[in-house]
Amino acid sequence: MKKNSLPTIAILGGTGKEGPGLALRWASVGYPILIGSRQLEKAKATAAELNERLGDNSVTGFENADAARQAHISVLTVVQSAHQAALVGLKEALQGKILVDATARVDFRDPRPPQAPAAAQTAQDILGAGVRVVAAFQNVPAHALKKKLGESLDMDVLVCADDLEAAQEVIRLAEAGGMRAYYAGSLENALVVESLTSLLISINRHYGVKTASIAITGLVEKKSEI
Amino acid sequence: MKKNSLPTIAILGGTGKEGPGLALRWASVGYPILIGSRQLEKAKATAAELNERLGDNSVTGFENADAARQAHISVLTVVQSAHQAALVGLKEALQGKILVDATARVDFRDPRPPQAPAAAQTAQDILGAGVRVVAAFQNVPAHALKKKLGESLDMDVLVCADDLEAAQEVIRLAEAGGMRAYYAGSLENALVVESLTSLLISINRHYGVKTASIAITGLVEKKSEI
Repeated sequence: MKKNSLPTIAILGGTGKEGPGLALRWASVGYPILIGSRQLEKAKATAAELNERLGDNSVTGFENADAARQAHISVLTVVQSAHQAALVGLKEALQGKILVDATARVDFRDPRPPQAPAAAQTAQDILGAGVRVVAAFQNVPAHALKKKLGESLDMDVLVCADDLEAAQEVIRLAEAGGMRAYYAGSLENALVVESLTSLLISINRHYGVKTASIAITGLVEKKSEI
Repeated sequence: MKKNSLPTIAILGGTGKEGPGLALRWASVGYPILIGSRQLEKAKATAAELNERLGDNSVTGFENADAARQAHISVLTVVQSAHQAALVGLKEALQGKILVDATARVDFRDPRPPQAPAAAQTAQDILGAGVRVVAAFQNVPAHALKKKLGESLDMDVLVCADDLEAAQEVIRLAEAGGMRAYYAGSLENALVVESLTSLLISINRHYGVKTASIAITGLVEKKSEI
Protein backbone atom coordinates (compact mmCIF):
# COMPACT_ATOMS: atom_id res chain seq x y z
CA MET A 1 0.00 0.00 0.00
CA LYS A 2 1.35 3.41 -0.87
CA LYS A 3 2.21 5.62 2.06
CA ASN A 4 0.03 8.50 0.91
CA SER A 5 -3.01 6.25 0.63
CA LEU A 6 -3.02 5.66 4.39
CA PRO A 7 -4.95 7.94 6.74
CA THR A 8 -3.04 10.40 8.89
CA ILE A 9 -3.11 9.50 12.58
CA ALA A 10 -2.77 12.05 15.37
CA ILE A 11 -1.59 10.82 18.77
CA LEU A 12 -2.92 13.45 21.16
CA GLY A 13 -1.16 13.77 24.48
CA GLY A 14 1.40 11.73 22.59
CA THR A 15 4.53 12.52 24.57
CA GLY A 16 3.90 10.08 27.43
CA LYS A 17 4.64 6.34 27.50
CA GLU A 18 1.78 4.88 25.50
CA GLY A 19 1.56 7.45 22.71
CA PRO A 20 5.07 7.12 21.29
CA GLY A 21 4.75 3.33 21.35
CA LEU A 22 1.59 3.41 19.25
CA ALA A 23 3.12 6.08 16.97
CA LEU A 24 6.13 3.85 16.29
CA ARG A 25 3.90 0.90 15.37
CA TRP A 26 1.90 2.84 12.82
CA ALA A 27 4.73 4.97 11.47
CA SER A 28 6.79 1.85 10.83
CA VAL A 29 4.11 0.48 8.49
CA GLY A 30 3.70 3.71 6.60
CA TYR A 31 1.07 5.82 8.37
CA PRO A 32 1.79 9.56 8.51
CA ILE A 33 1.83 10.39 12.24
CA LEU A 34 1.22 13.67 14.04
CA ILE A 35 2.30 13.82 17.67
CA GLY A 36 0.12 16.25 19.63
CA SER A 37 0.94 17.86 22.96
CA ARG A 38 -0.18 20.85 24.97
CA GLN A 39 3.35 22.14 24.44
CA LEU A 40 4.56 22.39 20.85
CA GLU A 41 8.20 21.96 21.85
CA LYS A 42 7.53 18.67 23.63
CA ALA A 43 5.60 17.38 20.63
CA LYS A 44 8.45 18.30 18.30
CA ALA A 45 11.02 16.67 20.58
CA THR A 46 9.05 13.39 20.71
CA ALA A 47 8.56 13.49 16.93
CA ALA A 48 12.30 13.97 16.43
CA GLU A 49 13.09 11.01 18.70
CA LEU A 50 10.67 8.79 16.82
CA ASN A 51 12.00 9.86 13.42
CA GLU A 52 15.50 9.06 14.57
CA ARG A 53 14.48 5.58 15.61
CA LEU A 54 12.52 5.09 12.37
CA GLY A 55 15.21 6.61 10.13
CA ASP A 56 12.75 8.81 8.26
CA ASN A 57 10.53 11.88 8.64
CA SER A 58 7.07 10.38 8.94
CA VAL A 59 6.35 11.89 12.36
CA THR A 60 5.63 15.59 12.96
CA GLY A 61 4.93 17.49 16.21
CA PHE A 62 2.02 19.91 16.74
CA GLU A 63 -0.13 21.36 19.48
CA ASN A 64 -2.98 18.95 20.20
CA ALA A 65 -5.76 20.83 18.40
CA ASP A 66 -3.61 21.46 15.33
CA ALA A 67 -2.73 17.77 15.15
CA ALA A 68 -6.40 16.76 15.50
CA ARG A 69 -7.45 19.21 12.79
CA GLN A 70 -5.03 17.74 10.22
CA ALA A 71 -5.59 14.06 11.09
CA HIS A 72 -8.14 11.57 9.79
CA ILE A 73 -8.18 9.63 13.05
CA SER A 74 -7.04 10.91 16.47
CA VAL A 75 -5.97 8.71 19.37
CA LEU A 76 -6.07 10.29 22.83
CA THR A 77 -3.40 8.92 25.18
CA VAL A 78 -3.48 11.36 28.08
CA VAL A 79 -3.50 10.32 31.72
CA GLN A 80 -6.83 10.22 33.52
CA SER A 81 -6.33 13.55 35.31
CA ALA A 82 -5.83 15.42 32.01
CA HIS A 83 -8.68 13.71 30.15
CA GLN A 84 -11.58 16.12 30.45
CA ALA A 85 -9.59 19.34 29.95
CA ALA A 86 -7.95 17.90 26.84
CA LEU A 87 -11.31 16.97 25.32
CA VAL A 88 -12.86 20.39 25.86
CA GLY A 89 -10.00 21.92 23.89
CA LEU A 90 -10.43 19.41 21.05
CA LYS A 91 -14.16 19.59 20.50
CA GLU A 92 -14.11 21.86 17.47
CA ALA A 93 -11.13 20.19 15.77
CA LEU A 94 -12.62 16.69 16.03
CA GLN A 95 -16.09 17.30 14.58
CA GLY A 96 -16.94 14.75 11.90
CA LYS A 97 -13.96 12.54 12.79
CA ILE A 98 -13.07 9.48 14.83
CA LEU A 99 -11.59 10.01 18.30
CA VAL A 100 -10.08 6.89 19.82
CA ASP A 101 -10.02 7.18 23.60
CA ALA A 102 -7.10 5.18 25.03
CA THR A 103 -7.06 6.83 28.46
CA ALA A 104 -5.55 4.64 31.17
CA ARG A 105 -8.28 4.93 33.80
CA VAL A 106 -6.22 4.38 36.87
CA ASP A 107 -4.34 6.09 39.67
CA PHE A 108 -1.07 4.15 39.64
CA ARG A 109 -0.43 4.96 43.32
CA ASP A 110 -3.76 3.45 44.31
CA PRO A 111 -5.04 1.22 41.50
CA ARG A 112 -8.67 0.20 41.91
CA PRO A 113 -11.63 -0.41 39.60
CA PRO A 114 -13.10 2.87 38.28
CA GLN A 115 -16.75 3.83 38.59
CA ALA A 116 -19.21 4.47 35.79
CA PRO A 117 -19.40 6.25 33.43
CA ALA A 118 -16.58 5.04 31.22
CA ALA A 119 -14.01 7.70 30.29
CA ALA A 120 -15.00 7.07 26.68
CA GLN A 121 -18.63 7.91 27.50
CA THR A 122 -17.48 11.12 29.17
CA ALA A 123 -15.55 11.88 25.98
CA GLN A 124 -18.67 11.34 23.88
CA ASP A 125 -20.65 13.64 26.18
CA ILE A 126 -18.06 16.40 25.96
CA LEU A 127 -17.44 16.12 22.21
CA GLY A 128 -21.09 15.72 21.22
CA ALA A 129 -22.78 13.50 18.64
CA GLY A 130 -20.69 14.92 15.78
CA VAL A 131 -17.60 13.00 16.88
CA ARG A 132 -17.39 9.22 16.50
CA VAL A 133 -15.86 8.08 19.80
CA VAL A 134 -14.24 4.65 19.96
CA ALA A 135 -12.56 3.18 23.06
CA ALA A 136 -9.43 1.11 22.43
CA PHE A 137 -5.74 0.55 23.27
CA GLN A 138 -6.19 1.25 27.02
CA ASN A 139 -4.24 -1.84 28.04
CA VAL A 140 -1.52 -2.17 25.45
CA PRO A 141 1.70 -2.39 27.49
CA ALA A 142 3.92 0.55 26.42
CA HIS A 143 6.90 -1.63 27.25
CA ALA A 144 5.88 -4.26 24.67
CA LEU A 145 5.01 -1.70 21.99
CA LYS A 146 8.51 -0.30 21.93
CA LYS A 147 10.47 -3.47 22.51
CA LYS A 148 8.81 -5.68 19.97
CA LEU A 149 8.50 -3.33 17.02
CA GLY A 150 7.94 -5.43 13.92
CA GLU A 151 6.53 -8.37 15.87
CA SER A 152 2.87 -9.06 16.53
CA LEU A 153 1.90 -8.38 20.14
CA ASP A 154 0.68 -11.28 22.24
CA MET A 155 -2.50 -9.54 23.37
CA ASP A 156 -5.87 -8.42 22.06
CA VAL A 157 -7.23 -4.91 21.76
CA LEU A 158 -10.87 -4.67 22.84
CA VAL A 159 -12.72 -2.08 20.81
CA CYS A 160 -15.94 -0.55 22.19
CA ALA A 161 -18.12 1.89 20.29
CA ASP A 162 -21.74 2.73 19.66
CA ASP A 163 -20.80 3.34 15.99
CA LEU A 164 -19.96 -0.06 14.50
CA GLU A 165 -18.35 1.34 11.35
CA ALA A 166 -16.03 3.51 13.38
CA ALA A 167 -15.13 0.46 15.49
CA GLN A 168 -14.35 -1.46 12.31
CA GLU A 169 -12.00 1.27 11.13
CA VAL A 170 -10.15 1.18 14.46
CA ILE A 171 -9.94 -2.61 14.32
CA ARG A 172 -8.24 -2.30 10.93
CA LEU A 173 -5.86 0.29 12.36
CA ALA A 174 -4.97 -2.00 15.28
CA GLU A 175 -4.36 -4.90 12.92
CA ALA A 176 -2.17 -2.75 10.68
CA GLY A 177 -0.04 -2.10 13.78
CA GLY A 178 0.36 -5.81 14.52
CA MET A 179 -2.36 -6.04 17.17
CA ARG A 180 -5.33 -8.41 17.11
CA ALA A 181 -8.53 -6.50 17.87
CA TYR A 182 -12.11 -7.48 18.60
CA TYR A 183 -15.36 -5.59 18.84
CA ALA A 184 -16.47 -5.77 22.49
CA GLY A 185 -19.78 -3.93 22.51
CA SER A 186 -21.06 -0.45 23.17
CA LEU A 187 -19.22 2.49 24.73
CA GLU A 188 -20.80 1.52 28.05
CA ASN A 189 -18.64 -1.63 27.97
CA ALA A 190 -15.53 0.53 27.75
CA LEU A 191 -15.79 0.80 31.54
CA VAL A 192 -14.93 -2.91 31.74
CA VAL A 193 -11.89 -2.49 29.52
CA GLU A 194 -10.80 0.57 31.51
CA SER A 195 -11.18 -1.36 34.75
CA LEU A 196 -8.91 -4.12 33.47
CA THR A 197 -5.99 -1.75 33.98
CA SER A 198 -6.15 -2.04 37.77
CA LEU A 199 -6.43 -5.81 37.49
CA LEU A 200 -3.43 -6.03 35.16
CA ILE A 201 -1.39 -3.86 37.56
CA SER A 202 -2.16 -6.37 40.33
CA ILE A 203 -1.07 -9.22 38.08
CA ASN A 204 2.11 -7.41 37.01
CA ARG A 205 3.03 -6.76 40.63
CA HIS A 206 2.23 -10.27 41.81
CA TYR A 207 4.08 -12.08 39.03
CA GLY A 208 6.93 -9.57 38.73
CA VAL A 209 6.35 -8.61 35.11
CA LYS A 210 5.46 -5.39 33.26
CA THR A 211 3.59 -6.72 30.27
CA ALA A 212 0.53 -8.56 31.53
CA SER A 213 -2.37 -8.05 29.17
CA ILE A 214 -5.37 -10.04 28.01
CA ALA A 215 -6.45 -12.08 25.05
CA ILE A 216 -9.86 -13.32 24.01
CA THR A 217 -10.23 -17.08 23.74
CA GLY A 218 -13.04 -19.37 22.62
CA LEU A 219 -13.84 -17.62 19.36
CA VAL A 220 -13.43 -21.05 17.71
CA GLU A 221 -13.72 -19.83 14.15
CA LYS A 222 -11.73 -16.74 13.32
CA LYS A 223 -13.93 -13.68 13.33
CA SER A 224 -15.25 -13.10 9.83
CA GLU A 225 -16.05 -9.43 9.81
CA ILE A 226 -17.83 -7.08 12.09
CA MET B 1 -3.24 -39.38 44.35
CA LYS B 2 -5.74 -41.42 46.32
CA LYS B 3 -9.32 -40.31 46.10
CA ASN B 4 -9.78 -39.95 49.83
CA SER B 5 -6.77 -37.64 50.14
CA LEU B 6 -8.50 -34.95 48.10
CA PRO B 7 -10.70 -32.33 49.77
CA THR B 8 -14.46 -32.59 49.43
CA ILE B 9 -15.94 -29.86 47.23
CA ALA B 10 -19.51 -28.57 47.60
CA ILE B 11 -21.08 -26.88 44.59
CA LEU B 12 -23.79 -24.71 46.13
CA GLY B 13 -26.65 -23.73 43.87
CA GLY B 14 -25.16 -26.51 41.82
CA THR B 15 -28.14 -27.49 39.68
CA GLY B 16 -27.80 -24.67 37.12
CA LYS B 17 -25.50 -24.54 34.09
CA GLU B 18 -22.16 -23.66 35.62
CA GLY B 19 -22.26 -25.84 38.72
CA PRO B 20 -22.64 -29.26 37.08
CA GLY B 21 -19.85 -28.36 34.61
CA LEU B 22 -17.41 -27.60 37.42
CA ALA B 23 -18.59 -30.68 39.36
CA LEU B 24 -17.84 -32.92 36.37
CA ARG B 25 -14.32 -31.49 36.01
CA TRP B 26 -13.40 -32.14 39.62
CA ALA B 27 -15.27 -35.43 40.03
CA SER B 28 -13.53 -36.82 36.96
CA VAL B 29 -10.12 -36.31 38.59
CA GLY B 30 -11.13 -37.85 41.89
CA TYR B 31 -12.58 -35.11 44.10
CA PRO B 32 -15.60 -36.14 46.19
CA ILE B 33 -18.36 -33.73 45.13
CA LEU B 34 -21.48 -32.58 46.96
CA ILE B 35 -24.14 -30.88 44.87
CA GLY B 36 -26.11 -28.38 46.95
CA SER B 37 -29.52 -26.93 46.15
CA ARG B 38 -32.36 -25.23 47.98
CA GLN B 39 -34.39 -28.31 47.05
CA LEU B 40 -32.96 -31.66 48.08
CA GLU B 41 -34.71 -33.50 45.25
CA LYS B 42 -33.15 -31.26 42.59
CA ALA B 43 -29.71 -31.75 44.12
CA LYS B 44 -30.17 -35.52 44.10
CA ALA B 45 -31.37 -35.50 40.50
CA THR B 46 -28.34 -33.49 39.33
CA ALA B 47 -26.01 -35.75 41.33
CA ALA B 48 -27.58 -38.84 39.70
CA GLU B 49 -27.12 -37.35 36.21
CA LEU B 50 -23.48 -36.56 36.91
CA ASN B 51 -22.80 -40.03 38.36
CA GLU B 52 -24.33 -41.59 35.27
CA ARG B 53 -22.04 -39.57 33.01
CA LEU B 54 -19.03 -40.34 35.23
CA GLY B 55 -19.89 -44.03 35.69
CA ASP B 56 -19.36 -43.95 39.44
CA ASN B 57 -20.86 -42.60 42.67
CA SER B 58 -18.58 -39.71 43.51
CA VAL B 59 -21.34 -37.09 43.48
CA THR B 60 -24.01 -36.77 46.19
CA GLY B 61 -26.93 -34.35 46.50
CA PHE B 62 -27.78 -32.30 49.63
CA GLU B 63 -29.52 -29.13 50.67
CA ASN B 64 -27.09 -26.22 50.36
CA ALA B 65 -26.25 -25.79 54.06
CA ASP B 66 -25.78 -29.54 54.57
CA ALA B 67 -23.43 -29.69 51.60
CA ALA B 68 -21.43 -26.69 52.88
CA ARG B 69 -21.17 -28.21 56.37
CA GLN B 70 -19.62 -31.45 55.06
CA ALA B 71 -17.29 -29.86 52.48
CA HIS B 72 -13.76 -28.55 52.80
CA ILE B 73 -14.26 -25.96 50.06
CA SER B 74 -17.59 -24.62 48.81
CA VAL B 75 -18.17 -23.03 45.41
CA LEU B 76 -21.25 -20.83 45.07
CA THR B 77 -22.72 -20.88 41.54
CA VAL B 78 -26.10 -19.23 42.02
CA VAL B 79 -27.48 -16.53 39.73
CA GLN B 80 -27.11 -12.93 40.82
CA SER B 81 -30.69 -12.58 42.04
CA ALA B 82 -30.30 -15.51 44.48
CA HIS B 83 -26.86 -14.50 45.74
CA GLN B 84 -27.58 -12.64 48.97
CA ALA B 85 -30.35 -14.90 50.23
CA ALA B 86 -28.19 -17.97 49.64
CA LEU B 87 -25.29 -16.49 51.61
CA VAL B 88 -27.40 -15.58 54.63
CA GLY B 89 -28.49 -19.20 54.88
CA LEU B 90 -24.91 -20.46 54.64
CA LYS B 91 -23.19 -18.22 57.17
CA GLU B 92 -23.08 -20.70 60.00
CA ALA B 93 -22.10 -23.71 57.87
CA LEU B 94 -19.17 -21.92 56.20
CA GLN B 95 -17.36 -20.57 59.29
CA GLY B 96 -13.65 -21.38 59.18
CA LYS B 97 -13.81 -22.52 55.56
CA ILE B 98 -13.20 -21.25 52.03
CA LEU B 99 -16.18 -20.00 50.04
CA VAL B 100 -15.48 -19.51 46.36
CA ASP B 101 -17.90 -17.00 44.88
CA ALA B 102 -18.51 -17.76 41.18
CA THR B 103 -21.68 -15.70 40.80
CA ALA B 104 -22.31 -14.54 37.25
CA ARG B 105 -22.94 -10.84 37.90
CA VAL B 106 -25.19 -10.11 34.98
CA ASP B 107 -28.77 -9.78 33.86
CA PHE B 108 -28.72 -11.80 30.64
CA ARG B 109 -31.68 -9.85 29.23
CA ASP B 110 -29.83 -6.56 29.70
CA PRO B 111 -26.10 -7.22 30.14
CA ARG B 112 -24.14 -4.20 31.35
CA PRO B 113 -21.17 -3.60 33.67
CA PRO B 114 -22.15 -4.02 37.35
CA GLN B 115 -21.52 -1.37 39.99
CA ALA B 116 -19.35 -1.68 43.08
CA PRO B 117 -19.17 -3.45 45.44
CA ALA B 118 -18.16 -6.77 43.92
CA ALA B 119 -20.53 -9.65 44.66
CA ALA B 120 -17.61 -11.34 46.37
CA GLN B 121 -17.20 -8.35 48.69
CA THR B 122 -20.90 -8.53 49.51
CA ALA B 123 -20.36 -12.21 50.29
CA GLN B 124 -17.51 -11.37 52.65
CA ASP B 125 -19.67 -8.75 54.39
CA ILE B 126 -22.54 -11.20 54.87
CA LEU B 127 -20.41 -14.17 55.94
CA GLY B 128 -18.08 -12.20 58.22
CA ALA B 129 -14.33 -12.43 58.78
CA GLY B 130 -14.52 -16.10 59.81
CA VAL B 131 -15.05 -17.22 56.20
CA ARG B 132 -12.24 -17.01 53.64
CA VAL B 133 -13.96 -15.63 50.54
CA VAL B 134 -12.29 -16.11 47.16
CA ALA B 135 -13.74 -14.93 43.83
CA ALA B 136 -13.16 -17.23 40.86
CA PHE B 137 -14.76 -19.18 37.97
CA GLN B 138 -17.25 -16.39 37.08
CA ASN B 139 -16.45 -16.57 33.39
CA VAL B 140 -15.83 -20.23 32.71
CA PRO B 141 -18.15 -21.05 29.80
CA ALA B 142 -20.50 -23.83 30.99
CA HIS B 143 -20.65 -25.01 27.40
CA ALA B 144 -16.90 -25.65 27.30
CA LEU B 145 -16.80 -27.29 30.73
CA LYS B 146 -19.16 -30.05 29.69
CA LYS B 147 -18.06 -30.52 26.11
CA LYS B 148 -14.34 -30.73 26.65
CA LEU B 149 -14.16 -32.94 29.73
CA GLY B 150 -10.65 -34.33 29.95
CA GLU B 151 -9.14 -31.49 27.90
CA SER B 152 -7.57 -28.34 29.25
CA LEU B 153 -9.73 -25.29 28.74
CA ASP B 154 -8.40 -22.50 26.52
CA MET B 155 -9.01 -19.75 29.08
CA ASP B 156 -7.67 -18.46 32.38
CA VAL B 157 -9.42 -18.28 35.72
CA LEU B 158 -8.76 -15.00 37.54
CA VAL B 159 -8.65 -15.51 41.28
CA CYS B 160 -9.23 -12.54 43.60
CA ALA B 161 -8.97 -12.71 47.38
CA ASP B 162 -7.73 -10.71 50.34
CA ASP B 163 -6.42 -13.99 51.79
CA LEU B 164 -3.50 -15.07 49.60
CA GLU B 165 -3.29 -18.60 51.00
CA ALA B 166 -6.95 -19.20 50.27
CA ALA B 167 -6.38 -17.90 46.72
CA GLN B 168 -3.49 -20.32 46.34
CA GLU B 169 -5.70 -23.24 47.37
CA VAL B 170 -8.31 -22.22 44.78
CA ILE B 171 -5.63 -21.86 42.08
CA ARG B 172 -4.57 -25.47 42.79
CA LEU B 173 -8.20 -26.57 42.58
CA ALA B 174 -8.63 -24.82 39.21
CA GLU B 175 -5.46 -26.41 37.89
CA ALA B 176 -6.58 -29.85 39.06
CA GLY B 177 -9.69 -29.32 36.93
CA GLY B 178 -7.67 -28.48 33.81
CA MET B 179 -7.92 -24.70 34.09
CA ARG B 180 -5.03 -22.25 34.23
CA ALA B 181 -5.53 -19.79 37.07
CA TYR B 182 -3.81 -16.59 38.15
CA TYR B 183 -3.97 -14.43 41.24
CA ALA B 184 -5.50 -11.10 40.19
CA GLY B 185 -5.49 -9.05 43.38
CA SER B 186 -7.81 -8.25 46.23
CA LEU B 187 -11.54 -8.97 46.51
CA GLU B 188 -12.14 -5.40 45.32
CA ASN B 189 -10.74 -6.46 41.92
CA ALA B 190 -13.39 -9.17 41.71
CA LEU B 191 -15.67 -6.42 40.40
CA VAL B 192 -13.52 -6.28 37.26
CA VAL B 193 -13.77 -10.02 36.73
CA GLU B 194 -17.51 -9.93 37.37
CA SER B 195 -17.89 -7.11 34.85
CA LEU B 196 -16.11 -9.14 32.18
CA THR B 197 -19.27 -11.25 31.90
CA SER B 198 -21.20 -8.47 30.14
CA LEU B 199 -18.27 -7.85 27.84
CA LEU B 200 -17.97 -11.55 26.95
CA ILE B 201 -21.71 -11.69 26.21
CA SER B 202 -21.24 -8.81 23.74
CA ILE B 203 -18.35 -10.66 22.11
CA ASN B 204 -20.30 -13.95 21.97
CA ARG B 205 -23.23 -12.21 20.30
CA HIS B 206 -21.13 -10.27 17.85
CA TYR B 207 -18.97 -13.18 16.72
CA GLY B 208 -21.71 -15.81 16.92
CA VAL B 209 -20.06 -18.06 19.50
CA LYS B 210 -20.90 -19.24 23.04
CA THR B 211 -17.48 -19.76 24.50
CA ALA B 212 -15.67 -16.42 24.47
CA SER B 213 -13.47 -16.10 27.53
CA ILE B 214 -10.20 -14.45 28.40
CA ALA B 215 -6.59 -15.39 28.91
CA ILE B 216 -3.73 -13.48 30.50
CA THR B 217 -0.77 -12.78 28.23
CA GLY B 218 2.63 -11.20 28.77
CA LEU B 219 3.62 -13.19 31.85
CA VAL B 220 6.82 -14.07 29.97
CA GLU B 221 8.10 -16.56 32.49
CA LYS B 222 5.57 -19.02 33.78
CA LYS B 223 4.28 -18.01 37.17
CA SER B 224 6.41 -19.62 39.83
CA GLU B 225 4.19 -19.58 42.85
CA ILE B 226 1.93 -17.09 44.48
